[in-house]
Amino acid sequence: MHRSYPPCSDESQILASITLRTSLEQPVAKQTEQPLTEFSLIRAIARRFGRDARRLIKGIGDDAAVITPPPSVWWHVTTDLLTEGVHFDLTTADPYTVGYRAAIANLSDLAAMGATPRYLFVALAIPRGFTSQHIFSLYDGLMEGCRNHRVVLIGGDTSVSRGGLFVSITLMGTSAAGQALFRHGATIGDHIYVTGTLGDSQAGLQLLNEPRSFRATSQRKWSLSAKDRQFLIKRHLRPSARLREGQWLNGKNLATAAIDLSDGLSGDLQHLCEESGVGAEIDSGALPISAACRAYAAAYGVSPVDLALKGGEDYELLFTVSPSQQTTIERQARRRGFQVTRIGVIRPRQFGIQITQASGFPRPMPITSYEHRFS
Amino acid sequence: MHRSYPPCSDESQILASITLRTSLEQPVAKQTEQPLTEFSLIRAIARRFGRDARRLIKGIGDDAAVITPPPSVWWHVTTDLLTEGVHFDLTTADPYTVGYRAAIANLSDLAAMGATPRYLFVALAIPRGFTSQHIFSLYDGLMEGCRNHRVVLIGGDTSVSRGGLFVSITLMGTSAAGQALFRHGATIGDHIYVTGTLGDSQAGLQLLNEPRSFRATSQRKWSLSAKDRQFLIKRHLRPSARLREGQWLNGKNLATAAIDLSDGLSGDLQHLCEESGVGAEIDSGALPISAACRAYAAAYGVSPVDLALKGGEDYELLFTVSPSQQTTIERQARRRGFQVTRIGVIRPRQFGIQITQASGFPRPMPITSYEHRFS
Repeated sequence: MHRSYPPCSDESQILASITLRTSLEQPVAKQTEQPLTEFSLIRAIARRFGRDARRLIKGIGDDAAVITPPPSVWWHVTTDLLTEGVHFDLTTADPYTVGYRAAIANLSDLAAMGATPRYLFVALAIPRGFTSQHIFSLYDGLMEGCRNHRVVLIGGDTSVSRGGLFVSITLMGTSAAGQALFRHGATIGDHIYVTGTLGDSQAGLQLLNEPRSFRATSQRKWSLSAKDRQFLIKRHLRPSARLREGQWLNGKNLATAAIDLSDGLSGDLQHLCEESGVGAEIDSGALPISAACRAYAAAYGVSPVDLALKGGEDYELLFTVSPSQQTTIERQARRRGFQVTRIGVIRPRQFGIQITQASGFPRPMPITSYEHRFS
Repeated sequence: MHRSYPPCSDESQILASITLRTSLEQPVAKQTEQPLTEFSLIRAIARRFGRDARRLIKGIGDDAAVITPPPSVWWHVTTDLLTEGVHFDLTTADPYTVGYRAAIANLSDLAAMGATPRYLFVALAIPRGFTSQHIFSLYDGLMEGCRNHRVVLIGGDTSVSRGGLFVSITLMGTSAAGQALFRHGATIGDHIYVTGTLGDSQAGLQLLNEPRSFRATSQRKWSLSAKDRQFLIKRHLRPSARLREGQWLNGKNLATAAIDLSDGLSGDLQHLCEESGVGAEIDSGALPISAACRAYAAAYGVSPVDLALKGGEDYELLFTVSPSQQTTIERQARRRGFQVTRIGVIRPRQFGIQITQASGFPRPMPITSYEHRFS
């Protein structure tokens, strides 16, 4: 099985992401002309990204990385695996984007714990047809995703792959000892909040997957401004992890429970409710949906609420807050410039998870988030 | 691409490993009849392998695992990626064996640092045709590999794969702060030692890869006893990680540098020499080669020294010792029942890496260990 991968900078192949890349002024890796072997790759990665860091005893280049922990911390460790044809498609996301989004998926997990990310490990299975430029571009995207967060790449593994690209990331972070946000901890009567807006990433993905011929036709009945299209695609290709928000909620003891929205609101709310042993009622009218996402929904004849409930990979935070903290949290969020929206309330477990439509009664919320099926 | 994988207990498919499994009395996972989804798999894994451990705040089931580090330790973190068709072939190694060997590859990295393994993360990309029995069998193998080492599975990720099985393991361990074995640190005049015997795993792999028809023929000109064959195959399918040896060398400050033999002696010695900025002279006559490996080499007309130099995945330790410690180390090893063999001496960098044949002059040692080529 030998396939060729799109060149990293061919606009005709990966128009949207390249447009974004240029506009974001991200570095593009230089092509290495020599054949790339495992150990030369490791040396090149170490040269390019390895650096000294406080408390790092040994980074890339030994049997294991060695770290000396600061006193009185908890370690938070998360692992995410992204596989070609399942989590990403190299016709709609170039290697840089794959790396960037892999970083965000992991950073978002630590954001949901209220932790500070520190050390990164990257295991990469590299298919035939993937050039050294692709590989370095992927690492560039990874490190760009981690920028502003002082994350250091300190280890990993690389292998040939006989079946597509596989990216497995392990990210370690810290919080003050005794201080973390968990999925358990929500209690009946707590308010349910989310950061940012929901559904944008899903709308952006659907725009990227739209057949080119369909996009180009002049007979389309709908319209979506170039600005809205660009906004939604950027939200898919260059999401953010809500680390500052998570650290704020954790440091100030403001949330009773938290989870990041990677699988979609409906599925992730279910995880939080299961771990907390509670139910929830969501007000569909309160869901924060961007103007671009509403415009997309109108143009394509889909429900914006469905996008907000089912769309994955928004990487916003879902968290619960004791009623006594409601005014505090909203005041502090405003002062810090964080967008937080109250979307519902925690109910008893037997209530299940229900959603209230505009001026109607609550009805059971369909749980439709993505889940892998193995057999 | 849809292929079917061998049943986990079909002797006709994976005779050797099953024979070994039975003889080792390892648990075989029960078949789960229901279709397996991501979250049901995670719950099943958590039920089966999740457990409380000292200093573990949160294991499987949140956005990240949370650990509180003991005081005055260094953390050692290693990641290994095993890919189907590259690191293993499911026609010669069943899923249990894949899991077992993945565990050993990581444990061996920590052995080479002199660390104590603690926490395990498993990222798994699972191909179509892989049943729930295969998956649980792989985890069973992993945890069996970790047995005796008090390693706790505390996180990971699972995904569907469109291209074969991928296993990415991250293992965290600890040592006393300030106390670790590194690849750097070897100085001119240090003695070079290895644990155990070399080349067995490679011989075992070649036996497993031998065509069945060839194995069955009675016209063969060579002979290898069933016991030797079994020994070599077991060394390949069920290797050990030299954790006790590594911890001993580290705790007693006996080694100046160390590395584990995963790529083959010649390649791994080169890594150690590069990191230490030295050369080395190896005495081919001193290489510890098992009677079974010698019998294999004689029967198949190959050089036992070549097997010892080039064969990977022995997972023995290669380490260097100051001349003043030679008698101490050999006496202590004897007392503890550890097999250690002096195989050479550290030379200046410009000497390169040379090997001395029986009663001859040293000549440059061919560096022939396995290395992935990406482009």
